[in-house]
Amino acid sequence: MRWAEGFIAVDWGTTNRRAYRLDSSGRCVDEFEDHLGVLSVPAGGFPAAVADIRERLGDYPLLLAGMIGSNRGWKEAPYVACPAGIDGIAGKLVWTGEREAIVPGVSYVGDGRADVMRGEEVQLLGAAAAGLIDPTSFVCHPGTHNKWATLRDGRITEFRTVMTGELFNLLKEHSILSDLLQGDVQPNEAFKQGALQAIDEAALSADLFGVRAGVLLGQMSKEDAASYASGLLIGADVRIGLSIPTSAQIAVIGRPELTRLYAAAIGQAGRETIELDGENCFLAGINGIAKRI
Amino acid sequence: MRWAEGFIAVDWGTTNRRAYRLDSSGRCVDEFEDHLGVLSVPAGGFPAAVADIRERLGDYPLLLAGMIGSNRGWKEAPYVACPAGIDGIAGKLVWTGEREAIVPGVSYVGDGRADVMRGEEVQLLGAAAAGLIDPTSFVCHPGTHNKWATLRDGRITEFRTVMTGELFNLLKEHSILSDLLQGDVQPNEAFKQGALQAIDEAALSADLFGVRAGVLLGQMSKEDAASYASGLLIGADVRIGLSIPTSAQIAVIGRPELTRLYAAAIGQAGRETIELDGENCFLAGINGIAKRI
Repeated sequence: MRWAEGFIAVDWGTTNRRAYRLDSSGRCVDEFEDHLGVLSVPAGGFPAAVADIRERLGDYPLLLAGMIGSNRGWKEAPYVACPAGIDGIAGKLVWTGEREAIVPGVSYVGDGRADVMRGEEVQLLGAAAAGLIDPTSFVCHPGTHNKWATLRDGRITEFRTVMTGELFNLLKEHSILSDLLQGDVQPNEAFKQGALQAIDEAALSADLFGVRAGVLLGQMSKEDAASYASGLLIGADVRIGLSIPTSAQIAVIGRPELTRLYAAAIGQAGRETIELDGENCFLAGINGIAKRI
Repeated sequence: MRWAEGFIAVDWGTTNRRAYRLDSSGRCVDEFEDHLGVLSVPAGGFPAAVADIRERLGDYPLLLAGMIGSNRGWKEAPYVACPAGIDGIAGKLVWTGEREAIVPGVSYVGDGRADVMRGEEVQLLGAAAAGLIDPTSFVCHPGTHNKWATLRDGRITEFRTVMTGELFNLLKEHSILSDLLQGDVQPNEAFKQGALQAIDEAALSADLFGVRAGVLLGQMSKEDAASYASGLLIGADVRIGLSIPTSAQIAVIGRPELTRLYAAAIGQAGRETIELDGENCFLAGINGIAKRI
């Protein structure tokens, strides 16, 4: 590794960013998280935003992953096509200066469809590199845009995105269901019922309206509505993900408050999961990439 | 009919209203449409809004249908449960004065689910009463919330709502797909491909993200995106509707710009349709109700 003094890793998404200071052994010794996602940085504002990160964590080299490499970010980093492993990704870093590199996303074209990811690849490949999951695995990565990914021999070979998180937010913020979806979402009985309904019958855009009708006609309590609707959306997601044939145990990687919902819904489909904190996987992946610089 | 001088019929929805002056023979002799839907009338403002309608169309009795009878409207008109025919609905009008009546909506509870409609029932029952469709029919009524309804002997026996129009609008206004969905939607090849994809595989929340990925990776032209995405949503809707077993020809009732999209998508599923203008059906239905006053 060229960066003997350590480096700063940033998981820089659309609406949030998390920055970590890693020492020469790859251990995280300082960090912060804020809402200065890519969309909140004005055109031409990335050098200043990066200087601010160094102000807070020290004057170290920077390795940046996520939407920072999109056409809305600092500099576009072209996608690496599947199959994509850590070597392939580390070989396609895009440098914006001598001490700042951007990690490319991963693309998939095949089976009559196209798909893209930016940021999740670091976590998925990191989990495999660190031995947290088998090099040949099936992974679910919940978030605004959930990813179902197949890994073979430590490389991402295929994946599919489901925009579950975004749909839930749209319905919560702007739809006729809005007032019913303000409650807390828990993996409770209502959630599991919703998940089971969506796994059994693919009728999401009807079942969602059924939440409103159910409350109006006294068939569902208003308190259950948010968890049930979340169950419907995540259940529909699980139905799609499990249509990818695999016998592997399913690793659910991400923020714990989301992985437990997906684990509960996948359980309703009769499949076993392990849950992994996405932060640990990110650090493993970004260290693996940095080692190859 | 008590109202020998004729009456004013209003199809009063959430965001729009259409008002018709009908003469003693039930013929429409004057009309207007505006955006003063139920949500734009302030609390306590309905007497003034109704006076305004009479100002424009004359001092006649009023028969009001749609969301005007909801808890956001003038006065709540409790749902009439399925099976619901014109007699049942006319017998449950809610009077707000001696010369103003509100038409109740219809509810369905069964098969492990609940559903409601307000306004569409006038069109569906009107189409049957006027002989525009058979008294035993299968009807699709596109709109913000599409309805699939079974009629037997001139009564609505079962229906299911799919929130397709609202989902398309949410995605167009607020989602990551927003800039791709601004284009014109036509029942063209892209639309038909989207519909076929959604009819073949139930993976709506994944396929929608695929529109973005397809454009990013050059697999889909940006010009095709809006029609393809509309095809996906309406195709998913058709898949749900056609899961209700029926051998009947499908009558698609509503605004012509929507009925032609649904007719195209239903055609992709190999089923025949007839298209009917919802306005004619509304007038037939509201005349049928008025006759029973």
